[in-house]
This record gives sequence, structure tokens and C-alpha cells, in this order.
Amino acid sequence: MRVTFRAARIADVPAVVALLADDMLGAARERQQLEPYLAAFEAMRDEGTNHLIVGEDEVGRIVATYQVTFISGLSLAAARRAQVESVRVASDLRGAGVGLTMFADVEARARAAGCRLVQLTMNAARTESRRFYQSLGFEASHVGFKKPLG
Amino acid sequence: MRVTFRAARIADVPAVVALLADDMLGAARERQQLEPYLAAFEAMRDEGTNHLIVGEDEVGRIVATYQVTFISGLSLAAARRAQVESVRVASDLRGAGVGLTMFADVEARARAAGCRLVQLTMNAARTESRRFYQSLGFEASHVGFKKPLG
Repeated sequence: MRVTFRAARIADVPAVVALLADDMLGAARERQQLEPYLAAFEAMRDEGTNHLIVGEDEVGRIVATYQVTFISGLSLAAARRAQVESVRVASDLRGAGVGLTMFADVEARARAAGCRLVQLTMNAARTESRRFYQSLGFEASHVGFKKPLG
Repeated sequence: MRVTFRAARIADVPAVVALLADDMLGAARERQQLEPYLAAFEAMRDEGTNHLIVGEDEVGRIVATYQVTFISGLSLAAARRAQVESVRVASDLRGAGVGLTMFADVEARARAAGCRLVQLTMNAARTESRRFYQSLGFEASHVGFKKPLG
């Protein structure tokens, strides 16, 4: 399975939303209407350092996606960070090595953007993903907190 | 103790670096030369959605700092997030309620930027901070992974 990662185009948004929903947690969180997702895609583009990436197989099917945001900051001796969000691989392709290709792509983009660190958070319920990230050299050193604004 | 939060100016950078270093983990991580920090401050400004905030007391001393980045994205029904990093309060003022004022400021800025979620990660060694974030209504639902790029 050869998967190529590239920046998403607006025409990819429906496929990305389908991947976000094809997930044990995402199924309950995503919606049917496309309009808010298209607006979010445009907002990401305007933000400049916030990129939606898709993985395409040999026949042009979108089989994976992730979001990467480059964040400059003063801490850690002024290190720029690459933050990864919204990682998904099509359910019929999990365990086929797509994640390895994806994170090689993440690291290449992070280095090209001058980042010294890659960071991500994972819902603690995703026990299999934990082993995957540790196998890539990530350290589970942090606790991730979320607060919805009502 | 009345602390007012505002966007940092370049002249605040030395005080922010001093706060970053005045910390159980930051002490070993920050450096003496100012130049990389000034460059990171300029890079943050160029990124547009990435803000360094300082808390100033009545006599103009910088006693607290945090960084907030507004991140649009497709997941969670196209929710924009506010991500908080590099939270510090001057060591002589910890426990005096500055953190409460700070997070009221975080939430006000996040709402003004159209965010539906505030997120942050905390090194698992900061056991006292964990209780503080939970008292503010944050849920420790995620595991935070980091990987340095060698």
C-alpha cells in the first residue's frame, strides 16, 4: 500500500470529514452538514502555519489525514514546535503501515519548518495508539487537559 | 494582588524569559543569551494567531506569562481551539490567585477569537498544577506525547 501525503485542497474536505467520523470517538462528534468544515478549511488557510494534510493511495482515494500547526514560542530555549491533531487512517487500512509513512511525512514537514519538537495529544481511551506513538520515539510525558467553552 | 493581563511587547521578553527559567523544569531548559528569544517573539507576531501574554502588577512588574495560540481545524464539528502553553507565575506569588485571573483572561481571549475549546498540556511531574486545572473545569482526558527532532 503506497500512500502519498500532500496538502489538502478544498475538494478533499468531504473525504477528510468522512475519515474524522470513521472513528470510535469521532463518530459521535462530527456532523452531516459540510458548510462549517469548508469554513474551517478556509480559516486554516488564512492562519498560514496551520495545515491540513491528506494521504492518497495509488488510485486517488483519500485514506488518511492529519493536521499540523507550526507554533513558535519562547520556552525550551525558543524552540518552534510542530503540533499534530486529528490523525486518522481509513478503518480498512489500519495496521498496514500507513501511520509510519504519515509520521515520516510529519517529521519531514516539521524539520522543513524549523521545528525542534513534535507534539500531540491522544485521548487516553486510545490504548493501541499509545503503543504506536511510543514505537515512533514519542514520550508520554504530559497530561492533556481540555475544557469546552459553554 | 491586582494583576492585569495584556499582550507582551518586545521590551517584556527579558522578564518573560526570567519567568520561564524560574521553574522546576524551566531552570534546566532556558539559556542566557536573549537573541533567540527576541527572534521567537518576532516569529510569533508573524504567525498572527499566536500570542504572548504577560501579567503586570500595580507597579508594572511582570509577574506572570502565558502563550495562547488559536487553531482552527475540522475535527469536533469544525471547532476552533485555544491552546495554552508556557504558563508561569512568579515564584513569590504562587498560591495568591494570579492563576485564576490568568485563566479568566485566557477564556475571555478564547471566546473573543471564536474558540469552543481551551486545551493545554502539563508535564506529568507538576502534580500541584493538575489540581489547579481540574478546579478550573479542565478534564485530564488526554495523554500528551513529545518527540525532540535530533
